[in-house]
Amino acid sequence: MNAEIIAIGSELLTPYRQDTNSLYLTEKLNELGVEVAFKTIVGDNQRDLVSAARIAISRADIVIFMGGLGPTEDDLTREAVAEALELELHRDPEIISQLERRFAGRKMKMSPNNNKQADILAGATVLPNANGTAPGQWLSGKYDDDEKVIMLLPGPPHELKALFEEQCFDRLRAKVPAQFIATRVLKVAMMGESQCDARIAPIYKEYPDVQTTILAGSGEIQIHLRSRHISLELAELRVEKLAEEIENELEDFIFAHKGESLEQIVSYYLQMRNLTLAVAESCTGGLLGERITSVSGSSRYFLGGAIVYSNELKTDFAGVPPELIAKHGAVSREVAAALAEGIRQRCGADLGLAITGVAGPTGGTEQKPVGLVFHALASEGGTEVIERSFPGDRKRIRWFATQQGLEMVRRKLM
Amino acid sequence: MNAEIIAIGSELLTPYRQDTNSLYLTEKLNELGVEVAFKTIVGDNQRDLVSAARIAISRADIVIFMGGLGPTEDDLTREAVAEALELELHRDPEIISQLERRFAGRKMKMSPNNNKQADILAGATVLPNANGTAPGQWLSGKYDDDEKVIMLLPGPPHELKALFEEQCFDRLRAKVPAQFIATRVLKVAMMGESQCDARIAPIYKEYPDVQTTILAGSGEIQIHLRSRHISLELAELRVEKLAEEIENELEDFIFAHKGESLEQIVSYYLQMRNLTLAVAESCTGGLLGERITSVSGSSRYFLGGAIVYSNELKTDFAGVPPELIAKHGAVSREVAAALAEGIRQRCGADLGLAITGVAGPTGGTEQKPVGLVFHALASEGGTEVIERSFPGDRKRIRWFATQQGLEMVRRKLM
Repeated sequence: MNAEIIAIGSELLTPYRQDTNSLYLTEKLNELGVEVAFKTIVGDNQRDLVSAARIAISRADIVIFMGGLGPTEDDLTREAVAEALELELHRDPEIISQLERRFAGRKMKMSPNNNKQADILAGATVLPNANGTAPGQWLSGKYDDDEKVIMLLPGPPHELKALFEEQCFDRLRAKVPAQFIATRVLKVAMMGESQCDARIAPIYKEYPDVQTTILAGSGEIQIHLRSRHISLELAELRVEKLAEEIENELEDFIFAHKGESLEQIVSYYLQMRNLTLAVAESCTGGLLGERITSVSGSSRYFLGGAIVYSNELKTDFAGVPPELIAKHGAVSREVAAALAEGIRQRCGADLGLAITGVAGPTGGTEQKPVGLVFHALASEGGTEVIERSFPGDRKRIRWFATQQGLEMVRRKLM
Repeated sequence: MNAEIIAIGSELLTPYRQDTNSLYLTEKLNELGVEVAFKTIVGDNQRDLVSAARIAISRADIVIFMGGLGPTEDDLTREAVAEALELELHRDPEIISQLERRFAGRKMKMSPNNNKQADILAGATVLPNANGTAPGQWLSGKYDDDEKVIMLLPGPPHELKALFEEQCFDRLRAKVPAQFIATRVLKVAMMGESQCDARIAPIYKEYPDVQTTILAGSGEIQIHLRSRHISLELAELRVEKLAEEIENELEDFIFAHKGESLEQIVSYYLQMRNLTLAVAESCTGGLLGERITSVSGSSRYFLGGAIVYSNELKTDFAGVPPELIAKHGAVSREVAAALAEGIRQRCGADLGLAITGVAGPTGGTEQKPVGLVFHALASEGGTEVIERSFPGDRKRIRWFATQQGLEMVRRKLM
């Protein structure tokens, strides 16, 4: 079975806003073995909405409308679906009393425009919305000559998710043929996409029953494996077998075997080995620390560190001799190593990680162009320095630099 | 005139990837006075693609196809548009020689599947692609009984942008009725959306010719104003007049008058006053420094600072007395103030900004729940502390905290 997701709202047709609900719904639909065939985004316009609804109902088995269920004049989804399906709308007095109680509970008077939220399509099941005023609606049966499932869901993400999770997922499962899906996400750091694909394509092509999707971007490659079978054992077996073959081929280039982020993996390793980490960052300006501390519980292994943007602070916080900076420049192998060693010692950490580079767009020279970054990792056993030249703008260069820094910690502890 | 944008690629129908090109194209189309009426996302499937193409051509004046122009079997856009419009495809020998030269220049042999990139729709203008192998195509004329403009553009964002900018924008301008658009973006910090709207709705409702869009999220509200008139003077006059009235109403709650980010505004003020800034961050773990240094040239006023995740580093890097931490706790008004004063002194900065709080999801107590954050700003004249309780998850709490911190600097220098 396939699905079409329709996101409704004129703000989704501006340069400033994007539908993200559909990513969540796609994940949930895929779990049930339902593929999304089309996504449509349409504004708050009755004619356009009726046309989009008619088209979706003619080409998809499951149609999900998101948004346009509120009380304002712009909220037209109920009316448009009624017109497209040639169904009556009736006003449900029970919903109106619920709305009135809700407003009264907040000591507010309900304005009459709220009543339209009680308009229900003939034959629809009302889906109460615990997080907002507009209930959802569920229709299933013969429409456009075929068995269809049609859902009207509220647009705000937290309302939509709660409602779908609690009231639509199981209902939908009962409507789709039983099947089982197994998935795995492998992640690879600091490797080119074509190089990666060249090595693993001969392997995954032997598994036509496992869908393999390779996504590359910002210093990591994600390999998504998905298998759908009539038994969970078989689905898992096929995914695990392919994952194992890919793991054998790529070996330690794979940093995550179950979709974890690089900072999460570094977190595991540091805790497993009972080690602490401190950072000294120049061009990344705090991004490295931010990524490390994005993991909840990072205070168990992350002590902190210094943002050594000025040369004085490189000396003051990480003990880098001013002469070293004068001789080699702040962006150099030597200063990177001194920063890592200095911050390690200064913070009393097991590992000191330092980054210094030219993030651009200005500040580059012929010898030290934009994108040149030195990464250093100091430990009891000595200091390792890696020099890289990253492409892209300031934002990408800074991201790549933290990716390389974290990857050094991973490889050290692996 | 209206437009439909069709993004093509099965990866755009997974939970992992989202079309972002359409945001760029929408901005450019809006500049020309063209509204986007529909966006459609469709997979690499000939039947679905032909159907989507037919529908779009029947309902929009301008149809832009993005993606599916490469050399692989999955790249079906040319064939699908040819089928939908009942046009012949012919293979252009000139494009094939260009492709061959391109591959030869890289010392690579061109595989035969690349030839299909030279298939051109009858009547189409070829749009050479300087950044990739697949050229774009431009069609204009009577299709489906009406004057239409149809574009086929490559999917990779940097290829699409360069091609649209250089080869489509002016061509399109010549096709649409001349009109002029003026825009302004005002930004408001640390104010509720409904509170903001209640104050400005009576104002903007008096300007029906200026489209006002209010977008809220993560500690700021954006007020987008857009006016379209037959003369640029008139369009600008109307936008400026409304902006001025809103500015008078909201006064210093508005931090940006022309769409600038909060870190950009802080950058202006610090440079204007020739002041330097240092930070000490605990729960934000580097995010504050990251945001400040995301502005190119920030080394002119930002010295750096410390990520004082552990209590020892609060003492060591910012001179906070251990007794103070023992007495009040690391998350307290007193420690926030001491951090700000200590880091200011330690770095020799004019301003010291500190953040300490409970980002969660663990670590909260009854007295100090998740979301409690203290922000302190130390200057020559003294230290100010602001206590806030932020809602949301770890990521949102950390973001709000940096937003409040930057807002304190702005208000101090305003």
